[in-house]
Formats: sequence, structure tokens, C-alpha cells
Amino acid sequence: MYEELGFAKVDHHRIKRKGFPEVIFGQGKTPEQIVKIAQSIVKKKQDVLITRTDKKTFAAVKKVFKRAKFHEKAKIISYARKPKLVSNFPVAIISAGTSDQPIAEEAAVTAEFLGIKVEKFYDVGVAGIHRLVSNLDKIKKCKVLIVVAGMEGALPSVVGGLVDKPIIAVPTSIGYGSSFKGLAALLTMMNSCAPGVAVVNIDNGFGAAVMAFTILKD
Amino acid sequence: MYEELGFAKVDHHRIKRKGFPEVIFGQGKTPEQIVKIAQSIVKKKQDVLITRTDKKTFAAVKKVFKRAKFHEKAKIISYARKPKLVSNFPVAIISAGTSDQPIAEEAAVTAEFLGIKVEKFYDVGVAGIHRLVSNLDKIKKCKVLIVVAGMEGALPSVVGGLVDKPIIAVPTSIGYGSSFKGLAALLTMMNSCAPGVAVVNIDNGFGAAVMAFTILKD
Amino acid sequence: MYEELGFAKVDHHRIKRKGFPEVIFGQGKTPEQIVKIAQSIVKKKQDVLITRTDKKTFAAVKKVFKRAKFHEKAKIISYARKPKLVSNFPVAIISAGTSDQPIAEEAAVTAEFLGIKVEKFYDVGVAGIHRLVSNLDKIKKCKVLIVVAGMEGALPSVVGGLVDKPIIAVPTSIGYGSSFKGLAALLTMMNSCAPGVAVVNIDNGFGAAVMAFTILKD
Amino acid sequence: MYEELGFAKVDHHRIKRKGFPEVIFGQGKTPEQIVKIAQSIVKKKQDVLITRTDKKTFAAVKKVFKRAKFHEKAKIISYARKPKLVSNFPVAIISAGTSDQPIAEEAAVTAEFLGIKVEKFYDVGVAGIHRLVSNLDKIKKCKVLIVVAGMEGALPSVVGGLVDKPIIAVPTSIGYGSSFKGLAALLTMMNSCAPGVAVVNIDNGFGAAVMAFTILKD
Amino acid sequence: MYEELGFAKVDHHRIKRKGFPEVIFGQGKTPEQIVKIAQSIVKKKQDVLITRTDKKTFAAVKKVFKRAKFHEKAKIISYARKPKLVSNFPVAIISAGTSDQPIAEEAAVTAEFLGIKVEKFYDVGVAGIHRLVSNLDKIKKCKVLIVVAGMEGALPSVVGGLVDKPIIAVPTSIGYGSSFKGLAALLTMMNSCAPGVAVVNIDNGFGAAVMAFTILKD
Amino acid sequence: MYEELGFAKVDHHRIKRKGFPEVIFGQGKTPEQIVKIAQSIVKKKQDVLITRTDKKTFAAVKKVFKRAKFHEKAKIISYARKPKLVSNFPVAIISAGTSDQPIAEEAAVTAEFLGIKVEKFYDVGVAGIHRLVSNLDKIKKCKVLIVVAGMEGALPSVVGGLVDKPIIAVPTSIGYGSSFKGLAALLTMMNSCAPGVAVVNIDNGFGAAVMAFTILKD
Amino acid sequence: MYEELGFAKVDHHRIKRKGFPEVIFGQGKTPEQIVKIAQSIVKKKQDVLITRTDKKTFAAVKKVFKRAKFHEKAKIISYARKPKLVSNFPVAIISAGTSDQPIAEEAAVTAEFLGIKVEKFYDVGVAGIHRLVSNLDKIKKCKVLIVVAGMEGALPSVVGGLVDKPIIAVPTSIGYGSSFKGLAALLTMMNSCAPGVAVVNIDNGFGAAVMAFTILKD
Amino acid sequence: MYEELGFAKVDHHRIKRKGFPEVIFGQGKTPEQIVKIAQSIVKKKQDVLITRTDKKTFAAVKKVFKRAKFHEKAKIISYARKPKLVSNFPVAIISAGTSDQPIAEEAAVTAEFLGIKVEKFYDVGVAGIHRLVSNLDKIKKCKVLIVVAGMEGALPSVVGGLVDKPIIAVPTSIGYGSSFKGLAALLTMMNSCAPGVAVVNIDNGFGAAVMAFTILKD
Repeated sequence: MYEELGFAKVDHHRIKRKGFPEVIFGQGKTPEQIVKIAQSIVKKKQDVLITRTDKKTFAAVKKVFKRAKFHEKAKIISYARKPKLVSNFPVAIISAGTSDQPIAEEAAVTAEFLGIKVEKFYDVGVAGIHRLVSNLDKIKKCKVLIVVAGMEGALPSVVGGLVDKPIIAVPTSIGYGSSFKGLAALLTMMNSCAPGVAVVNIDNGFGAAVMAFTILKD
Repeated sequence: MYEELGFAKVDHHRIKRKGFPEVIFGQGKTPEQIVKIAQSIVKKKQDVLITRTDKKTFAAVKKVFKRAKFHEKAKIISYARKPKLVSNFPVAIISAGTSDQPIAEEAAVTAEFLGIKVEKFYDVGVAGIHRLVSNLDKIKKCKVLIVVAGMEGALPSVVGGLVDKPIIAVPTSIGYGSSFKGLAALLTMMNSCAPGVAVVNIDNGFGAAVMAFTILKD
Repeated sequence: MYEELGFAKVDHHRIKRKGFPEVIFGQGKTPEQIVKIAQSIVKKKQDVLITRTDKKTFAAVKKVFKRAKFHEKAKIISYARKPKLVSNFPVAIISAGTSDQPIAEEAAVTAEFLGIKVEKFYDVGVAGIHRLVSNLDKIKKCKVLIVVAGMEGALPSVVGGLVDKPIIAVPTSIGYGSSFKGLAALLTMMNSCAPGVAVVNIDNGFGAAVMAFTILKD
Repeated sequence: MYEELGFAKVDHHRIKRKGFPEVIFGQGKTPEQIVKIAQSIVKKKQDVLITRTDKKTFAAVKKVFKRAKFHEKAKIISYARKPKLVSNFPVAIISAGTSDQPIAEEAAVTAEFLGIKVEKFYDVGVAGIHRLVSNLDKIKKCKVLIVVAGMEGALPSVVGGLVDKPIIAVPTSIGYGSSFKGLAALLTMMNSCAPGVAVVNIDNGFGAAVMAFTILKD
Repeated sequence: MYEELGFAKVDHHRIKRKGFPEVIFGQGKTPEQIVKIAQSIVKKKQDVLITRTDKKTFAAVKKVFKRAKFHEKAKIISYARKPKLVSNFPVAIISAGTSDQPIAEEAAVTAEFLGIKVEKFYDVGVAGIHRLVSNLDKIKKCKVLIVVAGMEGALPSVVGGLVDKPIIAVPTSIGYGSSFKGLAALLTMMNSCAPGVAVVNIDNGFGAAVMAFTILKD
Repeated sequence: MYEELGFAKVDHHRIKRKGFPEVIFGQGKTPEQIVKIAQSIVKKKQDVLITRTDKKTFAAVKKVFKRAKFHEKAKIISYARKPKLVSNFPVAIISAGTSDQPIAEEAAVTAEFLGIKVEKFYDVGVAGIHRLVSNLDKIKKCKVLIVVAGMEGALPSVVGGLVDKPIIAVPTSIGYGSSFKGLAALLTMMNSCAPGVAVVNIDNGFGAAVMAFTILKD
Repeated sequence: MYEELGFAKVDHHRIKRKGFPEVIFGQGKTPEQIVKIAQSIVKKKQDVLITRTDKKTFAAVKKVFKRAKFHEKAKIISYARKPKLVSNFPVAIISAGTSDQPIAEEAAVTAEFLGIKVEKFYDVGVAGIHRLVSNLDKIKKCKVLIVVAGMEGALPSVVGGLVDKPIIAVPTSIGYGSSFKGLAALLTMMNSCAPGVAVVNIDNGFGAAVMAFTILKD
Repeated sequence: MYEELGFAKVDHHRIKRKGFPEVIFGQGKTPEQIVKIAQSIVKKKQDVLITRTDKKTFAAVKKVFKRAKFHEKAKIISYARKPKLVSNFPVAIISAGTSDQPIAEEAAVTAEFLGIKVEKFYDVGVAGIHRLVSNLDKIKKCKVLIVVAGMEGALPSVVGGLVDKPIIAVPTSIGYGSSFKGLAALLTMMNSCAPGVAVVNIDNGFGAAVMAFTILKD
């Protein structure tokens, strides 16, 4: 059910329990550790996704897995066959400001890795609400919405007032002063007066995509 | 699109935008205000749900709407025709301790009002994990899981490690000392290492049910 | 410049320095103390405003000042001649939910006491944004906007994206769970991405009205 | 109404809605992104203001816009025609300590960009209150006061006790220990016992200037 | 060195170590417990001071100690011979608002019990700074200043900028909203830019008086 | 392994897994629920312990279980045969102030229920350290120390500097102002510079006793 | 009883009071200071343990003590004779994720230095609970369990529900967003619903090992 | 009364109001600014003290003021004539751990600059309380005690239980995990159960020394 690497027990069974293989959380692991875990996963004929990683780790991974790809903005390395779609419906990924896009991209790359179609609606924050409204018809065609916002984090409330789809809200650490690294946005989203909103951790684009995946796969 | 009551603008259009009528949040409103809003909703042939309410308000509502029902544990008044089911799949409502049940019931009553079948798994907290494991097969047949827990709030992580369904985690204010009225459970759930978990506000059983509804309907 | 009452030094000079008389903050003062301070103010031919007060205090004030008025929702007692208008432009008082109205009323009663015309737009929260949009033309005719909201407090950001007037944002303590008695709304408003928003203390409708007064007078 | 740059939707309509063009928040954007947004704005014959920026970005901007200016202390780049005054009354910018001046300068440069006259009163903190008092007559001639202070943030309360103008309080992150990066100053200002004070985010000199602009332009 | 009462070990030795007898902190103790501890102290020919107490406890104490006195505003019971003065210099007790006076009185009654002369300057908050300034000469004649303030707690900073005496700052829990029961005032005082300020716990008038006593006694 | 009561699943298996029967946490449960759970436990020939309970519940329990005992100070009901000792070594229960004794008693009653001998050292706080020192020899003879303290919570650090036994530190919610209901004491204990200290939740005397039990048994 | 080094008073008496020599906390001390303290300890024929240290300090220590050893992952330098075992029972060190291992190693190296046998169970987090369950028999043979976890910190609750040994829970600072550098894990562990859990400071592997030592020795 | 430097108003009058010249807080100021302020002070024949500074600034100061001295551990530059003693009594500076010494030194250098004799008692933390006790006689001869401690900050409580002098408690940011950069120590000290303790900001050795100065100078 798992392989013992000494420093890690790789959970090969996850694909059975959760429908997708173990994902490598890159932060705080050395390139060597990451390569070893990736090899253990590939040996089991599973695809590899490494999040919160960087160029240096990519260089190490690239040496072993020639066709590995680095999604720079999303800080993700993937080494995967073309996934089969788990749903015919796309997920909408909606982000408030330019600076929130790396987290939106983390969600997008993860979702595509998991076999979900992605529609992106970036830079549609509440300070210029017409940018959101003019995209509303397209948004309504998606089955799940991931809404990414920093600063005051009001976007999920506004979207939730207009659309009847499940909204996965992702607070980001973008902001300054009393944003307290995303705490302000997190609290805003937790207290949303709009129904149909649930929240994942600050900057957790990955988690939002997995939540969308569990909703969409039947 | 809305009716002006002076102290409130009743949003009759919500049923179009969101698929269900405006719900009355009872806390902080007088019985008189609640009755008036309810009347405005009923006039439009819509069903009525009043959350966070009490016996005194129920007495006032009962006078006007004979068939209104008080769900005491859930602190909810409903006045509704039998809803038609929005999905053939049930939602599982899983709660950790006896004291978390009022919030679990708020979710259950709301879900049934919205046309969702409910399966309840109460008192299956992580301190006696065999109670959870022995119900796992039944849980896996549900399409969405609402997991309610106070104190350390670890239950969604454990369930999320075992089941591949979307989990809507509801922290409760049950606990004492450094639980800080649900803050500890909320942070635990936000930081869950299990994929496929999103969180609603402390004690927000209602919000969890609406999130489940947006996932399950059509 | 001030009168010594033993337990208080009444600041009769304030009307010179600030343009309006000393206001009595009722909370934590006995009815007897409040009556004495009111008498000291009236002796100087100034008007009286008592905030955060209650029926019991009103009974005591009423005995001494027959024409005193109790604004119950706003929890304010006033004893005043008809003020002369300080501006031809009204202030808009915009509130998100029914439960936020007591604070909105505190702002409205105070503003009128200070000689400001008031236009009220209540119950126009972001969960049903059409209620706000349909009032936009009237709002734009006001010169200052006081925007009152609890829960996630997103309303000032949305208004600020649509209107080019100064917005005084008032977070309220309405909410539950992780609203932390208004902290969530306060942080949201401090981090507003919309320009032209400044914030006063939680539930401080009085302070918002005085801020509007300093902007509008002469 | 907006131009799609792929990574940003530039809001050319803002000048209509808010009376001034979209401003570029430099923090977290690459020099390339900033130059592209600036070009999109200039093409529409609007002026450019870039806040929270640095020398490196200025070098990139300078290559494209020869007459761009770098306000080093304020960390602002401007590329603008001489603005026409929106008011004959100046704004006073009052700061407590030497270390608070960069934020005061952010407010000053922004205000001048928006067509407001600025009077500066720097280093007049409450520990030496005579420095403030000796400037009181000049301060009273301004129509709006921006008061910038870190550490205990008491200056707005003191100024608010002496002057009857609207005060926009700006807490700064200057301090150490239990100042918690501006939180102490923010709370002080929110709780000011002086009437006529409203607060913007920590270090948000820009926001204070825009608030002043919305008050002064008629 | 101490007497064992079963539920308490009365520290009769304190008068030797600290120069004054053990004081009874009334909060959370039953009237019976308080009377027993008081008797144990009186048996040793020492004076009795009971803080944070109420009328009910006073009734119980009065039965045993006829000459006990209840200082109602200060919530203190004393049963003491006339103390001899420990210093010829008085302590100034300066308070910001009417609502802060109970804490100021706790300090005053304690100080007099310990043999210190007290000069009171009440209701001299920073919103009307002339009330403070007109008392400055008298304040400067005191050797220690206790400064009591709630809300934004700015008074110690202002006094500290004008007077060269040690200032013991007492934050009070007076305020609302983001005063967070005295936290705002506490942080303000900790971050005071004026030299010569040290802070005791929120509402701790007693502790301030003892600090003054340790400074003044020989 | 457990009995289904509808509102609770009683964990009869705990005595096997953990060495002692399921304990009823009384807070937030009705007397009826408590009696039912107690009956379910007694049926299995196990002893009953109900914590955080009150006189009203005791009256209900007493009707069913004649020999049930109410430990008033500890707020515990027990219905148990005389336990056999799990260890020949006693646990020391050391408390700082008179007001901390209810929590110390919760630990003491629980420990005795679990078969542990208890030695009590109450009211030995750090403000009169000789009271602690004079009991040091007796304390050193115990094998585990439970140290209970509110306010600044320094007692475990001082004891930990003098004795080489495992210390289970229990912060209490006793205090006022910036004690923040036990948070100050909790942080003090977490940061203890003395080795051999571990901390349980605020006011969790029960948890401390169980920790001692797991250390002492066989 | 101690040696005066000018900048430090080395506590040679600790081995008598606490059963093990003074340990050097490396963080914030220069290599020179550390070498001097180490020399003072060695002179007294005691063993040396330096925690939170680095390669640079090791180079300095190595020059003086040839046989010193650097445990890189644990960030510990030891210079010690082979310790004699204090107990025949091992301590289990259980860690949740790969990133928590440095703290687990700090506990392991310290425990072995103090004469305790160590059994390691790494990477057995709750997201794949079968990895824990398959090791349960081995874990049950240990007499004390140290459980190390970051992120949501749920592992001690799960282990505590399955095993009847004392659990010393160590929250780690691993995580992101609302983990707030270990605060989330700390609160989870403090509020554990499983009995027999006590908590040490965030990342305090050393403290956990000493707690285990005080439990296991004689 | 003050000199205008453009970026600063140097307060030459402070020596009259407060008894000592304006001190330069180095943090956040450039070497050039510091030199200019120093020159402005020296021109008035006053002494110069620069706190929170570094070697680079010292190099710049040294060029202008040959006899300037750098107190490296204290991070202070002084340029002063030999001060005359303000009191015959010394201040005791007592610090808990080796890492707290820089803050203790900041207090010591400042005190000596202000004309106060200093007695140092370093590294006498509560984990080895005999180190404190053996110095008690010498400590009792001082008239004011400055007690510096990080981590759990219990030292002032222990000293305050033994000595009857005014204690100025200085929490330091030394610690890790839940010390939250000195917050734990600050709260401990605020809640001290020992009478005669007042607290200054985290790491504010300078402020403690000035407080001592205002007490000692008569």
C-alpha cells in the first residue's frame, strides 16, 4: 500500500482511495528527495505533480524525466500522460487582481492535470465590476467556480450573489498592512453573506482544484 | 425584483438567480419583522425557511401560518410544501460529538428543505475512530459529505483521507479554553492535509447545506 | 472653557473648536450623571445629544427636559432646536442587512442633529446587488456616502467601484462565528481595493455622521 | 470599457466612474507588466501613476516614457501632464515622526497628481506637542487633514481635539515590539475619542490622498 | 511565615518582604472565604484591603469588622487604621473619561490605604486637551503620575510629552468595537513615543497604586 | 464496540483501548442525555464519571443511581466502585491561587477515580515563593506533578527549575484584562524555559489527570 | 553551583536537580560563546548537547572537541560519552509529514543523548491513515509517544484514540497560509478530544524528549 | 524651541521639559540623517545618544565626532561628556538568559548616559533560581530594578515576590514558536501576580532606562 523511502512513505494506494495519485508538495523538500519520491510514483505507472516548486528542482527532475514540464507562474512541475476528462463541464477560475494570478494558475494547472477543462476569467475584481458582469454568461456555463482574491476578498460574495453554482473561494496573501498575509480575505470569505461559498486555505489553489475535481468526477 | 418593506427589501428574484427562495436569518430580528418578511415571501408563492430562531418567534409565525413547523434542535422554522428532490444522491451529514448535533441538524433540516436526501452519521469523532470506520461503506455511497466538528476539528481530515467525495467542513463553537469559540476547529479544517476539503463559517450548518445543494442540483 | 462637575469636566468650548457641542456617550454612565451633564450643556444654550442610551435613561431625562425625544432604534436621546442646514447636499446612508439598521439609524439621527440632510438606502447588501444598482442614480446625487455593513463587509468596496464620492465605511458587529464581533468586516473595509474609502470603528454610526459633518459644513 | 492584456484588464472607464484614471499598484508586478499597462493607459490619453515601485522599474519605464519622473521617497513613478487643480483649498499632510515620511510623501505625490494643493507638516508627533501647536493656524486653513503616524498612533486624536476639519488617519508600520507592524496604531486610530476621524489601511498614503480627492473635488 | 486555611495559605510575611500586608483579590472568592482570610490577617495586627468586591461581600465583612468601609465606585472594602504617610509627595491620578473613573478610584483608594497622598485630575482626555493643560502646574508638583485611559489610550503619551515624572499607564476596558476590551489602549500605551511610561494590566488600578508606592516609600 | 443511542454512540470499547471507561463531558448536554449515556455505561459494568456538570444534573442522576456522588468544587459527578490503585506513587497537584482550585479539584477527583493517589499543594503561587519551597521535599516524592495556574502562569517554570519530575501544566482562565481568559497563562507555559513541562488546554484539569494516569499505570 | 563567564552563569548544579547537564540553546549565541560554555561544562566532566545550531558553529566546536558530532537534520551538536540507558522501554517518535522530520530528529537525538531508546515512525500522517495503522503494534510496545505534526496537527488525536500511552504532542511550524507558523497545529493539539495528550511549544522537539526522559527515568 | 531640518524638527526644548536631550532612534534613518540631527543637537551644547544603530552609521558619526563611542552589544552610539550622577542609588539590571543581554545592555548604556549607576545581574533566569537567590542581597540595595526576560518572561514575577522595589519589566523577542516574538513574555509580565511591576514595550531597554531615570532623579 505504500513504499518506504526512509524519509517518506509514498502512498501508492491513494489513487484507489481518492481517484488521483499522491501529489508532491515541494516546499521544504530538497530536489533529491523530490526526485526520489517522483521515481517511486512513476515506477507504479502513475503521473507526477509537484507543487510549490522552483527552477532548481525542475533542473533536477528534468534530468531524470525528459518530458517533465515546468509551469512557471503556477510553480508546478508535471510529468503526465494526457489525462482523460472526468467531466464534460468546465470549471471557471475567476481571479480578482493581476497579483492573484499565480494562485489562480496553481488551480488551473492542477485542474487540467486531474482531467478537468478550465475557463479562465482573470482580473475581474470588484473595483471595476463591469469586467465581471460582461463575462457572466460564460461563467454561468461552468459547473463549479473557483474564485481567487486577495486584499479584501469580496469577489466570492459578489459572484455568489449572481450565480447559482458552487463557489470554492481561495483567499490569497496578496495585500499589505491589515491584510495580515491573507487573514483579512479569509475572514471575508468565511463570513460571505452569499450562499453556496466554501473556503480553502490562503494561497491554496491546489486544494481548490482538488475540491472541484471531487465535485465534477462522478 | 424585490419588495420594499421599509426595514427590508425582500429579494423575490433570488429563486431565479440561485434556485431557491430568500431565507430569513432569524438572529437579531424581532418576531414582527420575521412574520412580515415571511408574508412577503409567501405572497409570491415561495416556501419559507427561518434559521437561528426560537420558540417565541415560532409562536408568532404559527399564528399566521398554521402549518409552520419548528425544528427545535436545529433552531429552524419551516413553512413549505414537500420539495421535489434535486438529486437522487443523498448528502452524508457526519458529526463528531453529541454537542455538535444542533449544527448538524441545521444542515440536515436545510438540506431537506432544499430537496436533498440526508443520511446522518452522528457522534463518530476521531477519539473512537472505529465508529467512523464501521460506517464507511454507507458514507461512500453519498455524493457530498458535510462534516461537523468542534474542539480540535480533526474529523474532516480523517474522513478526507478515506473517502473521495467533496467534503464541506463545518467547524462548531463547541469546546472550551483555547478552542476560542471555534477558531481552533476552523484553523484545523483550513489546514487539512487531506485533499477535497472546503470550509464554511463556524456553526454555519445552513451554509454547508446550501453549498451541498449547489453541487447536487441538476 | 469647561465646567467642573466633580465626575466630569464638560467641554463647553467644543462648539468653538469643532463646530458642534459636546455629545454625551451614554454607555457606562448612570441616568443621574447623564442628566447632570445635559443640564450643564443646556445652561450654555447648547443642544443635547445622548448616544448609546436606553429607555430608563430617557425616563430620567424626560423629567427634566419635557421636549426630549427618544430615537429608539438608534438608541439616541436628542433635545435640540431645529438645526440649520450646514449643506444643501445630503449624505447617503447605505446599509447591507436588516440587522445593520440600528447602526445606520445612529448615523442618520446624528447627522440630522448636526444639520445634514439624510437619504437612506437600507438592505442593499451584495448578495442581491440589483437592489443597490437600481438605486445608483439617487446615491450619486449625495455628496458623502456612509456605508454600513456587518458579516463580510464587502458593500463599501462594491459601492466604491461604482461611485466617485467619499465613502465612510462603518463595520458592524452583526455576524457570527469567524466574524469575531465585527473584526472581519473591519478588516475587509480597511483592505478595500476601491479608492475613496475610509473606516470608522465597529458600530460607530455616530462617528461616521460626524466625519460626514466635517466634510459637508461650509 | 476595458482593454484585455491577457494578464490584466485595464479599466479605461475608471476616469468616468471615479474622476481619475486607473492607477498601477506596482508591488508584485514585473517591470514588463507595468510598462505594458502604462502603455495601454497612455494610448487612451490618460496620465500614469505607479505606486509601491522602485528604481529598477523606473529604468524600464524611463526607456519608453522619457519624461517619467521618479519620486524616490514616495516610491512613486508619475508620467503626467500638469493637472488642473480640483479645489482652491489645500490638504494638510501631517506626520508624526521622521520614519513616517515615506508614507506621508506617498500621500503628497498622489494628491498633487490628482490636482490637489499640499501643505506639509512633518515631524510634529505628540511627544513634543509644541511643534504641532505652533503650526495650528496654518493647519486650520486647510480643508482636509491627512494625519500619518506609527508607533502608538495618537496624533490624529490630538489633532482631532483641536481642529474641526475631516481627518483621514493613516497608521504606519513604523515601530517595534508590540506595534505589530502598525496594528497598534491602527487600533488607536479606530478608537479615537476625537470626532471627525476616519482611517485607511496601514501605510496606505495613496488611499488617504484619493479619499481627500473625493472630498475636495466638487 | 504563612497560615494554612485549607483553601488558602495567607502570606503574613509579605509585610516584611514587600512593605505592606497581603491584599485580598475579591473576584472569584465567596464572601465566606474572604471573611476567613480577613480574620487571619487581622489576627496578625495587619490592615485589610479587599479589591474587586461588591455590596454582598461588604455585608458579610461588616458583620465581623464593624468599622470596615466600602468604597463603592472603587469596588474596594478597607478595614484599616489611619496609615502613616510614606512620602511627602503626592501621586497624581489622571483619568481620560468619566467611564474610566472606577479604575482611577481603585488606584486612589489603594494609594491612600498604603499611605500615599492623592491628587485627582479626572476627565481630562485628549479630545479636549485644554482641560489637561490648565492643570499642568499642579500635576508637575506630584512625584509619580498614574494615567488612566480607555478607548484609544493616548493620554499617557500626551502627558509624557509635557511632564518629566514617571508615568504608570493604566489601560481600561472602556470602549467598544475594535477597542477589544482594552487591548487597543494597552497597545497604544506599550508603544508610547513619550519616554518615561510603563504600563500595568487592563483595569489594574490596584497594581498602579502599588507600583507608585514602591517608588515613593523612602 | 459501541452502543447507538441515537444522539450518541457510547464507546464501550474504550476501556480496552485506553484502560478506562468513556467519560461524559457534561457541558452542553441535557440531564436526560447524560442519564441515558450513564445507564448505557453502567449496563456494561463500567464506572461513570461526569465532568463539567452541575447540581441540576446531579439531581437527575441521583434518582437513577442512588450512590452517585457530587464533587461540588470540581463540578464532577462520580458513580464508581472503589478503584484499585494503578501505581504506588502519588501525583502532586500544585495550584497557584485560591481561584485556581476548582480546576485543581477537577484534576484531583479524576485522578482518584482512575486509581491514582493524590497529594495536594494549593495556594503556593510565585508571589510568595517560600510557600512552595517549604513543601519541596514532599513534592519531590511524587512521580508526576500537575501544576495549575492562572494569571501569568509562571508556577510550572519555577517548579520545573527545582524538581526533576514530569510536569503537566494546566493554565486556568483566572485573571482579567490581558490574561484573555487563560491565553496569557497558556503562552507562558508553552514557552517555559524549564525542561520537562508539557501543557494541556485551559481549565482542563480532567485532561491533566488522564495524562498522569497514562504515565503512572503499570 | 554555577560558573560565572561574564555573559553567562553556567548551571553545573542542574545535573543534580534535573538529572541531566545544562544544555546549550544555540540560536542567538555566537560560536565563541558556545565554545566557552561547552568548555565550562566539559571541565565539570559533564556531556555537551548544543541545539538549534549550524555547520559554522560545529567547525568552531570541532577544533576544541575533536570527537564532537554534528547531527545535521536535527541541527544538534553532541559531545558525549555513551549514555547509560535510563529505561528498558523505548520512546516512539511518530511524525506526520516529510517536512516535520527535522523536529522529529531533534527529539530523537536528544532522547538518545539522555539515555533513551528511540523507535521512529515517520511520514504516517492522517491523510493516509493505513500507514499509521499498519505500525500500531510496534507503537503500542513503546512506553511514551512523541507525536510530531504540522499543518492541521490532527495526528496526536488519532493516535490518542488508538493507544493508551502518554502522548507528548509537538506542533511544527510546517504549513502555509492560515497555519500561522504552527499556531493552527498548536491549537488543534491543545483541544484534542483524545485523552492522554499534552503539548510542548511549536518545533520544540528537544522539550518533548526531555519530557519523555522525566517520565521514563527510574 | 525646535530646529527645522526639513526632514525633522529637532526638539531642543526637551531637556527643559523632560530633563534630558532628544535621543535619536536610529532604526529606519540613514547615516546622513542621523549625522545631521546629531550636529543640530551638539550645536546646542547637548549630549548625543543614538539607539538601534549599527557599525555603518558609527563610521559616519565618527568622521564628524571623533570621540563618539560605539557600544556594540547595546547597538548604541554615544557622544557625551561625563554625566553627573542624578542619584546615589544604583539601578539593578537583571536579565534572564544570555540571549536577552543586548536588550539589558541597551538599558545599561542608556542609564549610564543619563547619570545613573548600574549594577548588572545577567543570566539569572527562573530555570535555575539559585543564581537569582544568591544575588538577592545585592539586588535589594538598588532602588529600582529593570528585569529583562524573553521566552515565558516569568522572572519579574519571581523577583517581585522577593523584593520591595519598583520593577520595570522588559519583555524581549527572544524565543520561538508560540513566543510570537515577545508577545508571550509581554502578556506574562502584564498579568504578573506580584505587586510593583510595570511593563515597557518588547525589546525596549531604552524606555526602561528612561523610566528608571524619571524615578531616580529628584
